Amino acid sequence: MRFATLHDGTRDGKLCIVRSDGARLADASHIARTLQAALDRWDEVEPRLREFDAELENGRVVTDPVVLHHLQAPLPRAYEWIDGSAYLNHARLVRKSRGAELPPEMETDPLVYQGGSGMLLGPAEDIRLPDPLMGLDFEGEMAVILGDVPMGTRADGALSHVLLVTMLNDCTLRNLVSAELAKGFGFFQSKPATAFAPFVATPDELGGAWHDGRAHLQLKIWMNGRVVGDLETGPEMHFSFAQLIEHVAHTRALTSGTILGSGTVSNADTRHGVSCLAERRVLEILSSPDGQPRTPYLRAGDRIAMETFDGQGRSLFGRIEQKVVAG
Amino acid sequence: MRFATLHDGTRDGKLCIVRSDGARLADASHIARTLQAALDRWDEVEPRLREFDAELENGRVVTDPVVLHHLQAPLPRAYEWIDGSAYLNHARLVRKSRGAELPPEMETDPLVYQGGSGMLLGPAEDIRLPDPLMGLDFEGEMAVILGDVPMGTRADGALSHVLLVTMLNDCTLRNLVSAELAKGFGFFQSKPATAFAPFVATPDELGGAWHDGRAHLQLKIWMNGRVVGDLETGPEMHFSFAQLIEHVAHTRALTSGTILGSGTVSNADTRHGVSCLAERRVLEILSSPDGQPRTPYLRAGDRIAMETFDGQGRSLFGRIEQKVVAG
Repeated sequence: MRFATLHDGTRDGKLCIVRSDGARLADASHIARTLQAALDRWDEVEPRLREFDAELENGRVVTDPVVLHHLQAPLPRAYEWIDGSAYLNHARLVRKSRGAELPPEMETDPLVYQGGSGMLLGPAEDIRLPDPLMGLDFEGEMAVILGDVPMGTRADGALSHVLLVTMLNDCTLRNLVSAELAKGFGFFQSKPATAFAPFVATPDELGGAWHDGRAHLQLKIWMNGRVVGDLETGPEMHFSFAQLIEHVAHTRALTSGTILGSGTVSNADTRHGVSCLAERRVLEILSSPDGQPRTPYLRAGDRIAMETFDGQGRSLFGRIEQKVVAG
Repeated sequence: MRFATLHDGTRDGKLCIVRSDGARLADASHIARTLQAALDRWDEVEPRLREFDAELENGRVVTDPVVLHHLQAPLPRAYEWIDGSAYLNHARLVRKSRGAELPPEMETDPLVYQGGSGMLLGPAEDIRLPDPLMGLDFEGEMAVILGDVPMGTRADGALSHVLLVTMLNDCTLRNLVSAELAKGFGFFQSKPATAFAPFVATPDELGGAWHDGRAHLQLKIWMNGRVVGDLETGPEMHFSFAQLIEHVAHTRALTSGTILGSGTVSNADTRHGVSCLAERRVLEILSSPDGQPRTPYLRAGDRIAMETFDGQGRSLFGRIEQKVVAG
């Protein structure tokens, strides 16, 4: 099953089920008004949603075409948005550009940050850039949406709490990062609103591509219509979502609807390209004679697109298509 | 007006209005089912809530006694919980104990962190401590709950977005803090669930004590029945809530129901005592011949209470009364 959230004038939108071809959707708000409402009583509503999904596939319910700019983020606001940094190649590269090594504990102790979850952008919502000097970047990521997770949950068994899988664009204001992290309390202003793929999928939708607590898919990224990345999301995710869940539930419980991200997808083989400009700039710094990056950060008018495919070329979460606007 | 959230078997509880003596409350869920629902359409429901509040004061509605352990956090889960560090004396003291000075930019650039908001504790909920070596501490704070805040909101005018004021206990696992902050992405495991006062008050409830974007009140803290702090919350709050709002809305908008904290209340005059054990331990380190703290962190069985009073001795937000339990 895949879900989307349709704008209906309310803050949290209306729950819809997406047809397997991704082209049409059906109003499912008679079963649960919103995605959060479905997640709040998942055990009870999941069977009814699955029945309705079967009717949808059999052409027995009214559908509407999927129109990207009619969709909100699947959860337009969430109770928690926690982002990992599970692709160590990303961290390794960033450090390499300043002559540093990856601290060895990063291989055993997951690094996460608490993101702002009150305003999440839909797949076609503009990215507002108050000042181009802030250095706007995109970051392509995988994410899961969790059910209720008790405090002290261990990795072994944690995957039963994964209710949905999706893709996101974790926008980052690169030029604000170092000063902000130097203050010691983590990201805040350097992480503007995160944008989400149009669809969230139950793990079974991924078939064999969902294993070892990882989504084994291809994440493709376009900047202004040109491919900048075509990455493998599975093998290089150093910590699985199960390990990340154990880490984030160590000292507190998590409520249903908590979003947990993988961090920027990154592959050591540079032929895969990048899922953020920062990495491309690091590669430029390392390879150019003057040690300077050539690729500028995003400017007003730039367009970013992301899509995730399985081995059969099926787009799992639909397409993020955002434009950067000034102000 | 003051509100509380009554346990009713749902995740978000039931909205109640609290009578002015703080002893009884009335079900207001016919006006808005939950506090979040009221905040979502505040302009529309506030007048109706005020009418109902007047009827309550006139003894014309059914009331029930306020029973602390029947109450959830006013927002049992929130879309965002952002905590400042506005009492510079706290930061100054902590640094002094390790021979460091307060970085001068801390006087002009607010420091905030993004907290976990998915599971917020009610005023009488136990604090679970998985391991006493984690060094559990309390932190008494003031907080505001915001309406919708547009991105780029300036301090001048920001206070119109403050809908409610309250008090909270920002539990902290001190012995996890340094290793976690050294990782660079801020707090995560070192900040377990935050506990909230039973009542939230509209700013007018504070009368003259709400001015300059600060709550000018007395925060009293008891540990195992003995007063450990009796602090002034107003004058030493270096950044006002207006300044904190400008800071947190710099690069993104905030949704209605966002909780914004002041950080640990702290007074330079040590006769006021402390609102967290860390500060008391620092004072012990600085004054003892062996440079060692005497006060241990919290252990299972310890009890913490907090209450905030105005100049007339009225308890504004009711009483937090929590016990530490192992596990």
